[in-house]
Amino acid sequence: MSQILKALDAADQALDASLDRLYEFLRIPSISADSAYEGDCRKAAEWAAATLRDIGFDASPRKTIGHPMVVGHKRTGRPGVPHVLFYGHYDVQPPDPLELWNTKPFEPVRVKGPHGDMIVARGASDDKGQVMTFIEACRAILKTEGELPVDVTIFLEGEEESSSRSLVPFLRENKDELTADFCLVCDTGLWDRDTPAITTMLRGIVYEEVIIKAASRDLHSGMYGGAAQNPIRVLSKILAALHDEDGRVTLPGFYDGVKDLPAQVKAEWEALGFDGEAFLGEVGLKVPAGETGRTVLEQITVRPTCDVNGITGGYQGEGAKTVIAAQASAKVSFRLVAGQEPAKVQAAFRDFVTRSLPADCKAEFLSHGASAAIAVPTDSPPLAKARAALAEEWGRTAPVIGSGGSIPVVGDMQRILGIDSLLIGFALEDDQIHSPNEKYELRSFHKGIRSWVRILHALAK
Amino acid sequence: MSQILKALDAADQALDASLDRLYEFLRIPSISADSAYEGDCRKAAEWAAATLRDIGFDASPRKTIGHPMVVGHKRTGRPGVPHVLFYGHYDVQPPDPLELWNTKPFEPVRVKGPHGDMIVARGASDDKGQVMTFIEACRAILKTEGELPVDVTIFLEGEEESSSRSLVPFLRENKDELTADFCLVCDTGLWDRDTPAITTMLRGIVYEEVIIKAASRDLHSGMYGGAAQNPIRVLSKILAALHDEDGRVTLPGFYDGVKDLPAQVKAEWEALGFDGEAFLGEVGLKVPAGETGRTVLEQITVRPTCDVNGITGGYQGEGAKTVIAAQASAKVSFRLVAGQEPAKVQAAFRDFVTRSLPADCKAEFLSHGASAAIAVPTDSPPLAKARAALAEEWGRTAPVIGSGGSIPVVGDMQRILGIDSLLIGFALEDDQIHSPNEKYELRSFHKGIRSWVRILHALAK
Repeated sequence: MSQILKALDAADQALDASLDRLYEFLRIPSISADSAYEGDCRKAAEWAAATLRDIGFDASPRKTIGHPMVVGHKRTGRPGVPHVLFYGHYDVQPPDPLELWNTKPFEPVRVKGPHGDMIVARGASDDKGQVMTFIEACRAILKTEGELPVDVTIFLEGEEESSSRSLVPFLRENKDELTADFCLVCDTGLWDRDTPAITTMLRGIVYEEVIIKAASRDLHSGMYGGAAQNPIRVLSKILAALHDEDGRVTLPGFYDGVKDLPAQVKAEWEALGFDGEAFLGEVGLKVPAGETGRTVLEQITVRPTCDVNGITGGYQGEGAKTVIAAQASAKVSFRLVAGQEPAKVQAAFRDFVTRSLPADCKAEFLSHGASAAIAVPTDSPPLAKARAALAEEWGRTAPVIGSGGSIPVVGDMQRILGIDSLLIGFALEDDQIHSPNEKYELRSFHKGIRSWVRILHALAK
Repeated sequence: MSQILKALDAADQALDASLDRLYEFLRIPSISADSAYEGDCRKAAEWAAATLRDIGFDASPRKTIGHPMVVGHKRTGRPGVPHVLFYGHYDVQPPDPLELWNTKPFEPVRVKGPHGDMIVARGASDDKGQVMTFIEACRAILKTEGELPVDVTIFLEGEEESSSRSLVPFLRENKDELTADFCLVCDTGLWDRDTPAITTMLRGIVYEEVIIKAASRDLHSGMYGGAAQNPIRVLSKILAALHDEDGRVTLPGFYDGVKDLPAQVKAEWEALGFDGEAFLGEVGLKVPAGETGRTVLEQITVRPTCDVNGITGGYQGEGAKTVIAAQASAKVSFRLVAGQEPAKVQAAFRDFVTRSLPADCKAEFLSHGASAAIAVPTDSPPLAKARAALAEEWGRTAPVIGSGGSIPVVGDMQRILGIDSLLIGFALEDDQIHSPNEKYELRSFHKGIRSWVRILHALAK
């Protein structure tokens, strides 16, 4: 039995124990966006470091200005061996709205799904489940071989879901320790249940919060209604004006530098047979709501967008309150593609809001992140090796694809550490990440571990 | 010393005790809109009934489908004496946003204000303070005279701030017990600090909640952004379209039946010297935001309006969450004037929303109230008597005015009991009702009690 097969066998045998460890990780409510969970974020970092030490890594949590980072090393000691940096994150999205969960978000359960067993919990897919596929692959190899095929540094962040404010300073301050030959990023998905994928295009993001203020206090709408400026009305008008009738974003200069997808890539994608209607149908939708004349796949991966992610103002409780609120606010994010400059988009948005304000209103802004889109080379030797390893595990070639989400760390590592990333993950579109009842399929977890066993060996060749 | 002077003297002497009783009432957080405070609403009703019994009324709380009513009688036993129904409410608005209160909303405090001492608490002005002016006036008269000059029925509601769902059935079922010669309603204000007023025009209201739904669950904006319908965006667009550039409401037929203020009344109002700029200036505003070409006084009293009282959708916590919400909702109210039919306005709104929905979106509606505007006769004998009594207390004639707020009970009593109302109250524009730091000036409370002593005697003549 080859070393790879022995390690795969060990991974198979240990699957229940691997799941137990994942459950432990999932039970820690490491919600980075909410400061009430600061202690839990620290606990999750400590848990991850201890788990890495348990399998032989030299690992520890590292203090930052925000939530801690986790860094762990496992070197072969052999010269000339490639050095791989693995990136993931231990923080999770807030679980609200809680009432829509069928089980408690931080009490993971294994349930039967239409495609086999699933692990249901906040973070099951994004990103604790994915992170654990890599750690459990290392565990299986270390158990059967005593060492890893390549030098590995594991680097876990705790602020990925909340703007990563410590990331850039940390990368700068620890550049020597973190620099490797390339990075593996495990925060992406399969093409479909049976087909792996390697992501090479990622949208960037500009995430803004805008607060519109009018009167110095909340007013009674009976007494002031008709004469007083209403910030919710002002905000609604501004948000409504961000798109035109064709679903295009109206900010001046927004599409500057945005290129159409090359005809060849478009043709390849058409060959993949992406079913836009089915994709939308799974979440109860039918008609693409984006730019007229673009396919769903284009709309969600290679076209820039604008979405309002949250809005709040006035009375939101049960029943009625006849109030004119003193302020109203919205969280607005722009997904960016190659060619767009985050700073320009941010400035255009703020300028658009400010110029739209009527008398007596003012706007305040908070930035919750700004990062450019990413394009990773598609012809690198590590990518070819990983693709071959994935083909062995899945029996299918992994297409090179674009992703609609933002993974700013890929750009940060390009810029600061000077290294490119291979983006490989095992999530599925219907994993409900960022939503109630988030799940990770047992098959994703199991075949994810097996895929990494094969990839780590392939990268050594 | 005349009986009136004796009663006034008793009221003056008892002011501190009267205040203590008001504080007791204010300490009960009788928030009718929030079902968590159901027990406190009951407690407030029981407190009011016990207080009335204490001064000799035959009073009790009465069960309803919602919060209890309080009914108390004090008859003279003399035939031919007028019978007065006094209406007020013991429920209060929710106190949020709590962080903007300088003191705790349900721990009343007496503080120095720019115009003398003030009582600060939720409900101090709306409506517990106002209700207690009448009850304390009755107490002073009963103490000095042993009986009231007229037959009095006191009727307190506990759902005025939350759509009054029990009111109409209760009036219908207790028509015989509640019918009087006319009603005194104490939920209105002074014209200014030195001038009393009698309100004869009241705007009506249609209060709607609309919930826009799109996808079957919350979505990740990275994965779906660009293709998925965003309910916040849809809602914003609908709300933005409710007004045109001239501040007019765009619902078809909205202004049908709305008449301009007669030139003569407009001239009288101009003579009152209402300072629109100062009115808005007190709350940090400058420019009237309503219909172009209307004065502030018209905009807030005799013109119909539309205001968004609350909006909610998506992520509202600290930081960022890249979510496309499955739904978004808004509370929207219309202030109506004479000539507008509530049912038509409600139907026009629902139709407007439904017709504005893009593919994949649906709208649900909740009604939180619908009542027509009210006009009370300005030439009735009781009005003339009350005006004379007010002139004695304040040294100024009370103008007959319009109010922007809705007091639907006035219309209900007209329709069901067949009686008109005299709307007299002692609140001030800057009492911050429905807002943090609500207050009632000690002068309003004290002179309010004294005014009712005089009015009750005047009505007997």
